[in-house]
Amino acid sequence: MTTGREAIQKRTTVDVRGVTIGGDDFVVIAGPCAVESRDEILTTADAVRRSGARILRGGAFKPRTSPYSFQGLGEEGLKLLAEARETSGLPVVTEVTSPELVDLVCRYADILQVGARNMQNYALLEAVGKVRKPVMLKRGMMSTIEELLLAAEYILSSGNTGVVLCERGIRSFEKATRYTVDISAVPVIKKQSGLPVIVDPSHGTGHRDYVASVALAAAAAGADGIMVEVHPSPDNAMSDGIQSLCFADFAALMDRLRPVVSAVGRRIAPAGSR
Amino acid sequence: MTTGREAIQKRTTVDVRGVTIGGDDFVVIAGPCAVESRDEILTTADAVRRSGARILRGGAFKPRTSPYSFQGLGEEGLKLLAEARETSGLPVVTEVTSPELVDLVCRYADILQVGARNMQNYALLEAVGKVRKPVMLKRGMMSTIEELLLAAEYILSSGNTGVVLCERGIRSFEKATRYTVDISAVPVIKKQSGLPVIVDPSHGTGHRDYVASVALAAAAAGADGIMVEVHPSPDNAMSDGIQSLCFADFAALMDRLRPVVSAVGRRIAPAGSR
Amino acid sequence: MTTGREAIQKRTTVDVRGVTIGGDDFVVIAGPCAVESRDEILTTADAVRRSGARILRGGAFKPRTSPYSFQGLGEEGLKLLAEARETSGLPVVTEVTSPELVDLVCRYADILQVGARNMQNYALLEAVGKVRKPVMLKRGMMSTIEELLLAAEYILSSGNTGVVLCERGIRSFEKATRYTVDISAVPVIKKQSGLPVIVDPSHGTGHRDYVASVALAAAAAGADGIMVEVHPSPDNAMSDGIQSLCFADFAALMDRLRPVVSAVGRRIAPAGSR
Amino acid sequence: MTTGREAIQKRTTVDVRGVTIGGDDFVVIAGPCAVESRDEILTTADAVRRSGARILRGGAFKPRTSPYSFQGLGEEGLKLLAEARETSGLPVVTEVTSPELVDLVCRYADILQVGARNMQNYALLEAVGKVRKPVMLKRGMMSTIEELLLAAEYILSSGNTGVVLCERGIRSFEKATRYTVDISAVPVIKKQSGLPVIVDPSHGTGHRDYVASVALAAAAAGADGIMVEVHPSPDNAMSDGIQSLCFADFAALMDRLRPVVSAVGRRIAPAGSR
Repeated sequence: MTTGREAIQKRTTVDVRGVTIGGDDFVVIAGPCAVESRDEILTTADAVRRSGARILRGGAFKPRTSPYSFQGLGEEGLKLLAEARETSGLPVVTEVTSPELVDLVCRYADILQVGARNMQNYALLEAVGKVRKPVMLKRGMMSTIEELLLAAEYILSSGNTGVVLCERGIRSFEKATRYTVDISAVPVIKKQSGLPVIVDPSHGTGHRDYVASVALAAAAAGADGIMVEVHPSPDNAMSDGIQSLCFADFAALMDRLRPVVSAVGRRIAPAGSR
Repeated sequence: MTTGREAIQKRTTVDVRGVTIGGDDFVVIAGPCAVESRDEILTTADAVRRSGARILRGGAFKPRTSPYSFQGLGEEGLKLLAEARETSGLPVVTEVTSPELVDLVCRYADILQVGARNMQNYALLEAVGKVRKPVMLKRGMMSTIEELLLAAEYILSSGNTGVVLCERGIRSFEKATRYTVDISAVPVIKKQSGLPVIVDPSHGTGHRDYVASVALAAAAAGADGIMVEVHPSPDNAMSDGIQSLCFADFAALMDRLRPVVSAVGRRIAPAGSR
Repeated sequence: MTTGREAIQKRTTVDVRGVTIGGDDFVVIAGPCAVESRDEILTTADAVRRSGARILRGGAFKPRTSPYSFQGLGEEGLKLLAEARETSGLPVVTEVTSPELVDLVCRYADILQVGARNMQNYALLEAVGKVRKPVMLKRGMMSTIEELLLAAEYILSSGNTGVVLCERGIRSFEKATRYTVDISAVPVIKKQSGLPVIVDPSHGTGHRDYVASVALAAAAAGADGIMVEVHPSPDNAMSDGIQSLCFADFAALMDRLRPVVSAVGRRIAPAGSR
Repeated sequence: MTTGREAIQKRTTVDVRGVTIGGDDFVVIAGPCAVESRDEILTTADAVRRSGARILRGGAFKPRTSPYSFQGLGEEGLKLLAEARETSGLPVVTEVTSPELVDLVCRYADILQVGARNMQNYALLEAVGKVRKPVMLKRGMMSTIEELLLAAEYILSSGNTGVVLCERGIRSFEKATRYTVDISAVPVIKKQSGLPVIVDPSHGTGHRDYVASVALAAAAAGADGIMVEVHPSPDNAMSDGIQSLCFADFAALMDRLRPVVSAVGRRIAPAGSR
């Protein structure tokens, strides 16, 4: 019943400005949901780097359910991300939300994120398939793994081989968490494709109290990394504050993550490294 | 409980080249999943018009889960739709899949369809919000009614007041049907907004044996119309043949639909009318 | 992949003390969620009978999610139901929640209800399979149609051929309604088995504003009846008041139902009949 | 937001014939889906004990979706379990499926299992609430965590304080696995109650290839143990063979589990211990 997935059978690693996803390192991506200000992104970049994050995240173009919600700083946000890369040395991931924005986002980002709501936006998939930057493709909240792999195939068959998949929680009837992290997606994707896969416990649970447990679970299950929302002052964040960690909680998470990553035979950057 | 939906509180009707959706008439939209050939679309247009359909559907740009599936005829398909409009007199609805295609599709279509996979493609919503053609917005198979109404708000707040909503089935655990038609969505949408709402029993059930029952249910539940896939030879269709009706089955459905539509105090075009 | 369903292939009708379910009549079952008092059940029985209901419902043993919620009047409730049958002439349906209660409930009820939470309580299914009263088996809120039919098979293969199935809404991610009524279940069940099937729009939607639309939809889709919660004073009901209709709303629903039932070629009891 | 859960706020441990669940030990429960023969259960008990399992599982009364599937050996199965306890020294868990069977199962089992399909079988919950054996309550595949905690409250409020909860996968739209293990349930339950919680990766994934990853994830997420299906010859098992591990795969899983359990500060029985 499944159509061809010609391009994704070989095990691959993806290089993001010198950081390898899918190899021996367990890669932690961290940063705020949205770039809100120069101070917010620079201090966060410095804090997460010191705790061992390897890539900085931050949204400049925010796809929001309501047209009346904060939509992000746009290009100004991209410039701030680039400045944070300079000061921290961390490569940067940010979301691109439409084909027309691909060129602009490529000028600033080291890896392009395609968000869950756009997982089947085929025009966008084809557009990011034609650039020379790697892509992080998030699973739609009600998309099957099969559909995720076929969406990846749109990018790969357009010529871009640098695809990282991200499990970020699916929709279920359970309401104690915002979404239901499908932890089995990690071994299923590993069995069915050669692409690196990371887990987003922040969006996946929607609540900071549950982020650490799911982050540890992801490492144990064999994920190649995680993406975590961190904010200088989560209670004052302009979006998703309830699921963001403060700097101290992120540092504590990294301390708990290290022995688990070692236990499954992977490496993780030490605290304080650069 | 939710954020603003300023633009959609008043009961509205939408005019599609002289056909009013949301008024006393129960409007049947019919046609093939994809425009495949001149003969296919012209004969289908003629057949569905004679049975009482008021608008012709047909896909020229097809968003497909796999990049290796048939993607539609593109502009050639749009031209064939326009020809079918000339010969049948029926206005035409067809899907637009990215912002760059909006101008092109507007030159041929009488109402633009935004498909389920693009319901939260905000760049596309804003683009169709700026044109002077009405829009049919399909509910995402993973989207709540709340999110559907907020997606509509993107179009309405961009200046386009001609929005028709379409319930086309949501994803559930049940696998006897392709999706689960959420029949309650009809009264919920009617209560929470003033926008017209139609039901798509073809995609909703994914199987022609169940289309008629769900079509009748939609009429009884208070929907303003239905959209049904009809093909000259369903078993030979290039996409979605299993859920398409042949001409005779569509005519039989219309015969069963008439008394139900009358029973709820609506009107429906008689067979053979033009 | 499906195991045997030997017993349920023939189209059957079920006789409930003279009321036939699954034949030409569209049978309306109505009454309160729970039997609360003598006055409540007698006045409700009289009111629903006058509007055209054919069977009286009322819970005496209530399966409740919390052990601290009202659990029903028990045998006292059964006695009140029997008295209401005498005064109204309506047969009575009530739920049985464990094998030990089957004999007791059989002494009072005309048709035994197995609730959604007990759909796979096989000891109970076998127990009701051994009695000479018909059974109404409600679909579990997260059970497939396949599993519903196999649960029915437990009853049928135990020797009881009087089984009526009831679609009462399944669990989905949508939260505008309490459950999602799977209207397609009606034609799917009709195709795959010969058993009568009714719809419960009260539990299915969880909100009285949506009950009428879904009731009409059920009739149009080909259901053999509906089961509706009616209470003398819904806002004061001990359980499920928000989804219960008052007498006037029930009468109005019946008036809207009659032309739809006629439109699909079925009959419905006139108002005021006995 | 919910009703009372008076009895379950304190952190508790549950003693199963000398094995403590909910304390520092990470407890592995292993054994076949069903007790099939004397040889099968005795050899499995010996094998899993040697690899480090602390409790033996095995079904004697099997609730099956179809009445025509293998229903278990009944009391004969219970006797074989008791014999396996003698030879291996492992306490025994087995399912009880109706109130009438509680006394019988109590004579043989060290901890009673209430299965997912019976999570809201309140008569059964009350019956096991009145005995002096601990109970493992499995989450219904259609039940929220809230409902699971309230079901536990039925047992606790009946007087039995020895309740262990088990996450065993919920139903979602994803079909690559049989169910979707809700890994977040572990921290959510830990936050909302004091009861021990274990994970069943065998039923949760439905496929042996994914059992190890989810087992490791459960340990990392903070679960108090796991329950795993092990069979001498999975491809010849009478039920659930596809999700069962052979002895060698189980031993390998235990070897991978040890460092992860240590990494989160828990202990696990060494291989070869008794």
